[in-house]
Amino acid sequence: MTTPMQAAQAELEAAFPRERLVLDREKLEAYGRDESELGTFPPNVAVAVESAEEVRTIFAVASRHRVPVVPVAARSGKSGGVLALQGGIAISLERMNRVLEISPDDLIARVQPGVNTGLLQAEVEKHGLFYPPDPNSLELCSIGGNVAENAGGPRALKYGVTREYVLGLTAVLPTGEIVRLGKRSIKGVAGYDLTALLVGSEGTLGIVTEITLKLLPRPRHVATGLVVFPSVAAAARAVTKVLTAGILPRCLELLDDVALAAAARTSAYRFPADAGAALLVETDGNDADAVFGELVRLAEVVQSDAQGDVIVAQNEAQRRDIWETRRYLSVNLKTLHPLKLSEDVAVPRSRIPEMVERAKAVGARLGLAVATYGHAGDGNLHCNVLFDRAEERPKVDEAVAEILRAAVDLGGTITGEHGVGLAKRDFLAYEQGEAVVALERRLKAVFDPLGLLNPGKIFPPA
Amino acid sequence: MTTPMQAAQAELEAAFPRERLVLDREKLEAYGRDESELGTFPPNVAVAVESAEEVRTIFAVASRHRVPVVPVAARSGKSGGVLALQGGIAISLERMNRVLEISPDDLIARVQPGVNTGLLQAEVEKHGLFYPPDPNSLELCSIGGNVAENAGGPRALKYGVTREYVLGLTAVLPTGEIVRLGKRSIKGVAGYDLTALLVGSEGTLGIVTEITLKLLPRPRHVATGLVVFPSVAAAARAVTKVLTAGILPRCLELLDDVALAAAARTSAYRFPADAGAALLVETDGNDADAVFGELVRLAEVVQSDAQGDVIVAQNEAQRRDIWETRRYLSVNLKTLHPLKLSEDVAVPRSRIPEMVERAKAVGARLGLAVATYGHAGDGNLHCNVLFDRAEERPKVDEAVAEILRAAVDLGGTITGEHGVGLAKRDFLAYEQGEAVVALERRLKAVFDPLGLLNPGKIFPPA
Repeated sequence: MTTPMQAAQAELEAAFPRERLVLDREKLEAYGRDESELGTFPPNVAVAVESAEEVRTIFAVASRHRVPVVPVAARSGKSGGVLALQGGIAISLERMNRVLEISPDDLIARVQPGVNTGLLQAEVEKHGLFYPPDPNSLELCSIGGNVAENAGGPRALKYGVTREYVLGLTAVLPTGEIVRLGKRSIKGVAGYDLTALLVGSEGTLGIVTEITLKLLPRPRHVATGLVVFPSVAAAARAVTKVLTAGILPRCLELLDDVALAAAARTSAYRFPADAGAALLVETDGNDADAVFGELVRLAEVVQSDAQGDVIVAQNEAQRRDIWETRRYLSVNLKTLHPLKLSEDVAVPRSRIPEMVERAKAVGARLGLAVATYGHAGDGNLHCNVLFDRAEERPKVDEAVAEILRAAVDLGGTITGEHGVGLAKRDFLAYEQGEAVVALERRLKAVFDPLGLLNPGKIFPPA
Repeated sequence: MTTPMQAAQAELEAAFPRERLVLDREKLEAYGRDESELGTFPPNVAVAVESAEEVRTIFAVASRHRVPVVPVAARSGKSGGVLALQGGIAISLERMNRVLEISPDDLIARVQPGVNTGLLQAEVEKHGLFYPPDPNSLELCSIGGNVAENAGGPRALKYGVTREYVLGLTAVLPTGEIVRLGKRSIKGVAGYDLTALLVGSEGTLGIVTEITLKLLPRPRHVATGLVVFPSVAAAARAVTKVLTAGILPRCLELLDDVALAAAARTSAYRFPADAGAALLVETDGNDADAVFGELVRLAEVVQSDAQGDVIVAQNEAQRRDIWETRRYLSVNLKTLHPLKLSEDVAVPRSRIPEMVERAKAVGARLGLAVATYGHAGDGNLHCNVLFDRAEERPKVDEAVAEILRAAVDLGGTITGEHGVGLAKRDFLAYEQGEAVVALERRLKAVFDPLGLLNPGKIFPPA
């Protein structure tokens, strides 16, 4: 007797050249993992596609045999979005990794979804252009994943998130329709904004095969600084003072005391032992004096709340030193505690001190260290629950649940930039309410009437 | 015998105080008109609501009797979005005109939909804050209408359109559900981006009763200039040079020769008789020298394409003079030709000269003058077909149809910022294709299964 999956697989083997199919068990295991630490859920088969038409072929096979389909590319996601919960077919977009066009005249790029984000940035910068979204994983992640998750990053404070840069896209719907959504012009409001609906839909509505991105002129100068504060409250106060003083830096990155202590292990800078928090700040623009002047003005604004002097990078090496303080944080935290679960809440800016305190209190009650850092300028905080032994995991999950609920209670969200995926699907209704979740399920059914595309993500099983 | 509409009206009269109902024929005529020149389509009754719950009451009545509902506020729209094509109930949001909250700490405002956009800008500026979207109608229009149409304006080049500022909203769906969508935090990616889907949905998916807007720190300095060019092609070349030189002005407004000749009637500036186009340019930021310096650099970049010297405003009075050249354009065109139909296409930036030429060619063939002006920085062009007698209207409609199709053929869109509404519903499929329009109709049915909300807008009748 043939199972539906076996029948589907036979059809895929007939339709695709052998070298584009992954059937090897060990390789399939790799396709079933991402950066979420939620376990391994391998697909039964992975197909490396090269076109929208091939995606359509796979949807036809999947629909005939009622087997699930999951899109996958760089597997650097943090929420389990690409895990093949029910097995099935993984559509791998890794071969669709071409930059199709960079147009300085139109200030756009057309790319395939498998393009590495860091590489895309480097490519457009060669033309004096700028693609602002900068998720921390940019050396690993792909633009298709960024679109699926509506990825952010430090520069989102000034420049916004991925959604703000996606002008149009080509997507294949589970029904087999290949749709071109959005536009190539910078503006356009014809019909519903289906492009914005697909951005952040976590690969549950369609599979994106081409993306048209808006670019900006590249700002020519950047100034970077580091400020230490006696407490998170003082740092948060400083953030508000900066913004209400009319300064819009491109980054305002917060580290709390636990994060700072970890960062201190490798940082080029020595922080006071009783430091309570730090802010990494960055301004940019086209006039070197004005950019530096803005940072100096920022320093003046925060000085009364700070502990010690504001460190301002005087050259590129010092700038790198400051960023490495932030960049190696995750690694440094892991040397203190081998295991960690990184959360991704966002709260209204004024609630940052309360959010950090609540996360600490949850940790204290459960006997777990919590290090919080993130994009303070837009209230997006990564609360990292640190632990040493896998047996502590239930306690960690309890801590995470309390942190997510606290974010919602403070007027915020369970996810600022990583997505719901599998990781947070049980908390979606706590944030949005049952009526909104029900509406979202009805929309999902319009795109995917058979429920075959990435099942079990965003929403709990019905 | 009682008609469904009479029965519905009787229920509304029982449910609402008399002074909130409009039943007077003449007043209802006014509710049936906007700035689209598409005619008058009065509702049978208008109700001035004060809350989401009241909107729900009206949807319940409408659903019981199967009568259509149309949302209406400032009636300054250009695409016929509020016209009650099939009569029915107009839900007027004009009484819901309160600014509920301005939070400098969170950099947000919470407002009701009937708030006047210009007034909102003035209010937030009192706090040193900035709400960038600036539709030309900002003294007339309301923020709810801006959300419905995803309004833009000159500053969209640097700051984006309404959608980029709507963090969250409360909407009442035709099914009677009151949903809170989006967030109060700056970032957030939980679930589908229903907020972005409702923005620009032209009052066909739900009626928005509260809006949470993102604000920015207000840039402290602005510099304004005016440059004349021998041709539209030269002006467009200059736009590209500016942007690829790494300069991102907040406005880059184009006037073609016909527009410029009209503007010259009242402008404080004298333009050469053979001027082919002009650009109004504006830079902003926090450092006065840098802002002025950026404009000077811009002037240097465009000088070789320009005709005569770049005019740079040296004070606020000169700045106003420059803007009045642009602002009174519509009035000035009407003194030349009493009637005009203003189009709103957008094309990829590099296609601007071709678009302007095609519009002129269409006019020449049909014996109509066409004046084009608009937001050259983002390719959004208002092609104004000018005429003198109402009998010319069929010819004008033909010209408009050709202009819309030309925009699509050049890779652009039929509407950059005014919306489809009634005006362009027959051209939507030409731009998007039948499959996308069918998908949009299916989404509409999820929100509005009985098809009672703003019927006949965006899509042609099925």
